[in-house]
Amino acid sequence: MIKQLAIVGGTHGNEFTGIYLLQKWQKNQALIARSTFETETLFANAQAYQQNKRYIDHDLNRCFSHQDLADSSLDSIEQTRAKEINQLLGPKGNPRVDFIIDLHTTTTNMGPTLLITKKGKFYNQLAAYVKMHMPEAMISCDEDHKTNDEHHFLSTVAQDSVMVEVGPVPQSVLRHDVFEQSEQMTLLILDFIELHNKGEVPKLPETVDAYRYLESIKLPLTATGERAGMVHRDIQDKDFAKIEPGQVIFVTFDGEEITYQGDKAVYGSFINEAAYYDNNLAMSLLEKTTLSTTADD
Amino acid sequence: MIKQLAIVGGTHGNEFTGIYLLQKWQKNQALIARSTFETETLFANAQAYQQNKRYIDHDLNRCFSHQDLADSSLDSIEQTRAKEINQLLGPKGNPRVDFIIDLHTTTTNMGPTLLITKKGKFYNQLAAYVKMHMPEAMISCDEDHKTNDEHHFLSTVAQDSVMVEVGPVPQSVLRHDVFEQSEQMTLLILDFIELHNKGEVPKLPETVDAYRYLESIKLPLTATGERAGMVHRDIQDKDFAKIEPGQVIFVTFDGEEITYQGDKAVYGSFINEAAYYDNNLAMSLLEKTTLSTTADD
Repeated sequence: MIKQLAIVGGTHGNEFTGIYLLQKWQKNQALIARSTFETETLFANAQAYQQNKRYIDHDLNRCFSHQDLADSSLDSIEQTRAKEINQLLGPKGNPRVDFIIDLHTTTTNMGPTLLITKKGKFYNQLAAYVKMHMPEAMISCDEDHKTNDEHHFLSTVAQDSVMVEVGPVPQSVLRHDVFEQSEQMTLLILDFIELHNKGEVPKLPETVDAYRYLESIKLPLTATGERAGMVHRDIQDKDFAKIEPGQVIFVTFDGEEITYQGDKAVYGSFINEAAYYDNNLAMSLLEKTTLSTTADD
Repeated sequence: MIKQLAIVGGTHGNEFTGIYLLQKWQKNQALIARSTFETETLFANAQAYQQNKRYIDHDLNRCFSHQDLADSSLDSIEQTRAKEINQLLGPKGNPRVDFIIDLHTTTTNMGPTLLITKKGKFYNQLAAYVKMHMPEAMISCDEDHKTNDEHHFLSTVAQDSVMVEVGPVPQSVLRHDVFEQSEQMTLLILDFIELHNKGEVPKLPETVDAYRYLESIKLPLTATGERAGMVHRDIQDKDFAKIEPGQVIFVTFDGEEITYQGDKAVYGSFINEAAYYDNNLAMSLLEKTTLSTTADD
């Protein structure tokens, strides 16, 4: 039973959509109110928003492992804010809040994506419910091998959580379509939790298609670590499409094409995400999977 | 006769395309070499690039009016850099460099756009030449009522200049298509200047379609100046399309539609540009015009 839920926006300061959705819902709380649980909102990184940056010192959405939260020597702006948020919503391990929805956007063409970081029938049913009402929604799983405590995402302060990740939208921009898709997906999640709390989850499809994170790959780099190329036009904007071994995925600035070297077909997401340039990550690679709504997997 | 030309990139530190094109051309100078003039390159705002920001203190591309360049009390990072660039390429009024091509990108769907800030047959022929070889190119004029000396753009350090403005690409991202379009347009400008210097400009269409800047309009704001809405999906990505009086152009966060209040049809550009949020500008409004390649206009 979920009794207390938090919707978080502005975990990344230049992802405006969640920040403005929070403002909207704070003015009109009926939109996010449901009868079986309390909903609160949290603007996670207002300082980064003021500076129009993803983060100031550290990516806030990588600061929430149990170990880092317990380490008082980690005292950068975001590391300090993480400890505050852990007090406000957590503490992790024994949190006040049962469920967190963390709102994100991406510069990539992922469409409205539900990001799931934990296994279980509850999540599979949630995914199926969202996709039933929003067929364009994509389901992406990164259940990881870590326990919830080891996970570094903000949302994992609660025992249960999802991330809403919608694109394409440039950093520091509001797009009408992305705004509406983000709101629709969030409200569907609230609706599902309400139905789940009441024991009234409707009949759902037996399975739902999803993608599971495998690994991230880097942009072409020179021997000294400088960027030597970029994502090839053939896969630009082709998030969730198949990438075959030998397929062209990069092009150097001099026009030389570089192919995918894996030995089996995969699927891409976060293809050419602006925020990933810091680490020269080009994209995430995924495998296709199927989630069952009738059995835990 | 143009003898000395500078290609400038990174005037805005988070517009990566020009910065990486400069790197490419510095390694392979033959690509930008022409027989009748010298070509040099300049990375305008490396400090902002290091911080992954458009600018640090002030927009560098607004720092080049003659008056501001002469005012030693203006000593922010970009105001100081402007004076350095004025020494390197100028000084404005009697510049060492005859022509500047300044490379920009936009988050908006403007495609490859040639921005012209000065009137004259030379520019009209240049526009026609570029469009002849690159039919998807758009021509946008902002000749202003200012003299070149009063203009605040970096490129106006030289007596003659253009800006290459290509989108859509998020800030801090390289897109293969935008990279290639930016390179193609730049090389066409070099080719035209070469032909012009030689007196070998080929037969051109008599006229070329273009758009002329009229004014900028703001996002919907509350009485206290907070953003109250965003660009409506109906005109998002519709740069250079017609906007009729009474047409819906904005939507408030609560879903209320707001119409264009002008009394004649106009055209939009820079629709929902990320960099313009600082000033809450929603878009530029343009009128359609025709440039003659046979008579000065």
